[in-house]
Amino acid sequence: MPIRLNAADASFENAFAALLTGKREASVDVADTVAKIIADVRARGDEALIEYTKRFDRLENLDAGSLAISQADLDAAIDACDAKTLDALKTAAMRIEAYHERQRPEDARFTDTAGVELGHRWTPVSAVGLYVPGGTANYPSSVLMNAIPAKVAGVARVVMVVPTPDGVVNPLVLAAAKISGVDEVYRVGGAQAVAALAYGTATIAPVDKIVGPGNAFVAAAKRQVFGQVGIDMIAGPSEILVLADGDNDPEWIAADLLSQAEHDESSQSILITDDAGFATRVEEAVARQLKALPRETTATKSWADFGAVIVVSKLEDAVPLVDRLAPEHLEIATADPDVLLARVSNAGAIFLGRHTPEAIGDYVAGSNHVLPTARSARFSSGLNVLDFMKRTSIVRCDPEALRAIGPAALALAEAEGLDAHARSVSIRLNM
Amino acid sequence: MPIRLNAADASFENAFAALLTGKREASVDVADTVAKIIADVRARGDEALIEYTKRFDRLENLDAGSLAISQADLDAAIDACDAKTLDALKTAAMRIEAYHERQRPEDARFTDTAGVELGHRWTPVSAVGLYVPGGTANYPSSVLMNAIPAKVAGVARVVMVVPTPDGVVNPLVLAAAKISGVDEVYRVGGAQAVAALAYGTATIAPVDKIVGPGNAFVAAAKRQVFGQVGIDMIAGPSEILVLADGDNDPEWIAADLLSQAEHDESSQSILITDDAGFATRVEEAVARQLKALPRETTATKSWADFGAVIVVSKLEDAVPLVDRLAPEHLEIATADPDVLLARVSNAGAIFLGRHTPEAIGDYVAGSNHVLPTARSARFSSGLNVLDFMKRTSIVRCDPEALRAIGPAALALAEAEGLDAHARSVSIRLNM
Repeated sequence: MPIRLNAADASFENAFAALLTGKREASVDVADTVAKIIADVRARGDEALIEYTKRFDRLENLDAGSLAISQADLDAAIDACDAKTLDALKTAAMRIEAYHERQRPEDARFTDTAGVELGHRWTPVSAVGLYVPGGTANYPSSVLMNAIPAKVAGVARVVMVVPTPDGVVNPLVLAAAKISGVDEVYRVGGAQAVAALAYGTATIAPVDKIVGPGNAFVAAAKRQVFGQVGIDMIAGPSEILVLADGDNDPEWIAADLLSQAEHDESSQSILITDDAGFATRVEEAVARQLKALPRETTATKSWADFGAVIVVSKLEDAVPLVDRLAPEHLEIATADPDVLLARVSNAGAIFLGRHTPEAIGDYVAGSNHVLPTARSARFSSGLNVLDFMKRTSIVRCDPEALRAIGPAALALAEAEGLDAHARSVSIRLNM
Repeated sequence: MPIRLNAADASFENAFAALLTGKREASVDVADTVAKIIADVRARGDEALIEYTKRFDRLENLDAGSLAISQADLDAAIDACDAKTLDALKTAAMRIEAYHERQRPEDARFTDTAGVELGHRWTPVSAVGLYVPGGTANYPSSVLMNAIPAKVAGVARVVMVVPTPDGVVNPLVLAAAKISGVDEVYRVGGAQAVAALAYGTATIAPVDKIVGPGNAFVAAAKRQVFGQVGIDMIAGPSEILVLADGDNDPEWIAADLLSQAEHDESSQSILITDDAGFATRVEEAVARQLKALPRETTATKSWADFGAVIVVSKLEDAVPLVDRLAPEHLEIATADPDVLLARVSNAGAIFLGRHTPEAIGDYVAGSNHVLPTARSARFSSGLNVLDFMKRTSIVRCDPEALRAIGPAALALAEAEGLDAHARSVSIRLNM
């Protein structure tokens, strides 16, 4: 059973604080193993990459010539996909592209009152690596969510790596790569793939940034190559927080809570409501629906270990709780959700009203499903076009502008004891 | 003497590649020491924080009541500052604020052709910690550069920590805090200060993000608390790349190269020019100017160990070299710098023309001087207002909109084997 809290209880603050600080994931320390693999791929390139891939993915005949999955292979994968699913994938891609197109930032260039020309310019990262896991977390939707914003940003070279254990690859994942405009695909995974992307091999040219989810080895490898390349956030287990009044259908809300619980045993689903009777009806509905789920074991464990039902006296009281939890996904299932929307600050994505299940955002809303977890929505954002661009400041003084602002720079450089800084200004002012 | 390369030489590519991959900083492994300090401050709060501060900063009479530097202390610091320097600090603050005001992002909310209401909203991080080093790298300009963008973003609580070894504090640093609108200041530093900001103590409430430069202990502490809080980049030693034709005054360009060399023995100054004679005149001017510098030892070592002079046959040939170096600061000292500006992609900040020494950007241009180092301008940007905000996606379907896009979500959820995801959509469509 999930924990049940009532905000009116004296013990509430302690119990809620425990919910906030509770660790849901066991941390596996694979740093040393990963460091060796990275060093080896960095030193021996393709040779090491192929050795590890042969061993871990059981691909006996792999050689440098067969590392790549060709564009023709991608076309063939598209032909192998079920037409209805392929259509859905294309609908999702179109909507994701349209949503992200609006995120393209604008450059600026202006001259201020001192005569200084200032501005900034956004440019795309040149080459991006996209990690796609094999096995159970091999989701075509994630390919779209990572690759399309990169392409919208103008990244010239998007390189996907995906392990193919025993040669098996999900055609929908390759179809998603094709639909998203991925430029190169390689059948490699794990720390060895991350190392190849970061440092390059004879076959795989290095990239500047690596994104995408992965297991503990991939996460450790991303941490270790950070600096050599950029990385995205290291995503934790999925979370949903549903804020619902008693007028909702308990079956609908139960389904939403389970849509996160089924992801992973470490996922977290929380309901906050102002109606204790409704809370009980949702718990009963969850228990019923769990039995019908193919992923019953996972969802049952997640709901029992990390689920929570919190009753507040009025929904406004939930606002500070939401901001402290800073959930990855927040549903506001009320008749007028904009009232609470205006008061909440920390959440990766917010789903408004009774007809917006979070799963819509996982696939086809258009917004990104790569979102901050583990309370990091307090300080970070979901994946977006800016993650694939960088901003350069631009400054230009003519002699007059330098005369206007130079003396202040000179005074500060002198106060900081940086004489060469001061001299680079004064020498141009004949001072 | 700095290395001298000619792009026409057969050995150039190897020598340039070595320049790219050469490590300039010795990495000091203080992770274990730092982990102990963090665990201790997390467990014992103020008590541990005060113990470490007494020991490391030799502040015998410190207690919880004297951890804070009050707003009255800040006012007194302002009174203690030299009027000319204070004016310069205020000029810088005004210009930095004006530049960063233009970075405030816009929210969006729109309904698309399928009837789905979509959008995003930017909100400020609630509380930000600003680390300010003691000792030689105690720069008031850095306080402005870190605190003002946070305040422009709307951060309600900006908390500065600054160690005061033997009770000594730079009044200009406190004045800069006051001018920037910093809300709280504490006389603590090192890993213990970072731990206090991340986990909170009885005196210092926790923050959501920590920014600002520091020594190896501070950098290691920031890495270790990352996840609990957000952090900014870990800045490396400063860099300048000057792209200059032969029509420049060699003394001016030499002064610019030295303005970075004086920062740190690990700083790097590089000149790329199409005029070999000019290159020699700049090297001679550097040698002359070095002798007159108070920080001669530091600058001499930086220039000898990491300086480089590269001669290309025409300046356009420098463009791919610039993008591979991805310098923190790039000066384009030509008559028509916009030509090269348009072709270069990777640089933290670009200074155009003969009258824009990089030092202008360190203090009073208005643009931020916290910029990506160590080639990270390939994938990251200088500090800006967005670093103190986060973006929340917003999605709203009404029944019609869900009918329009729900079936595609359903198809993808089923293809991914996520039945509870599918169910949360189908249950609302009566399917």
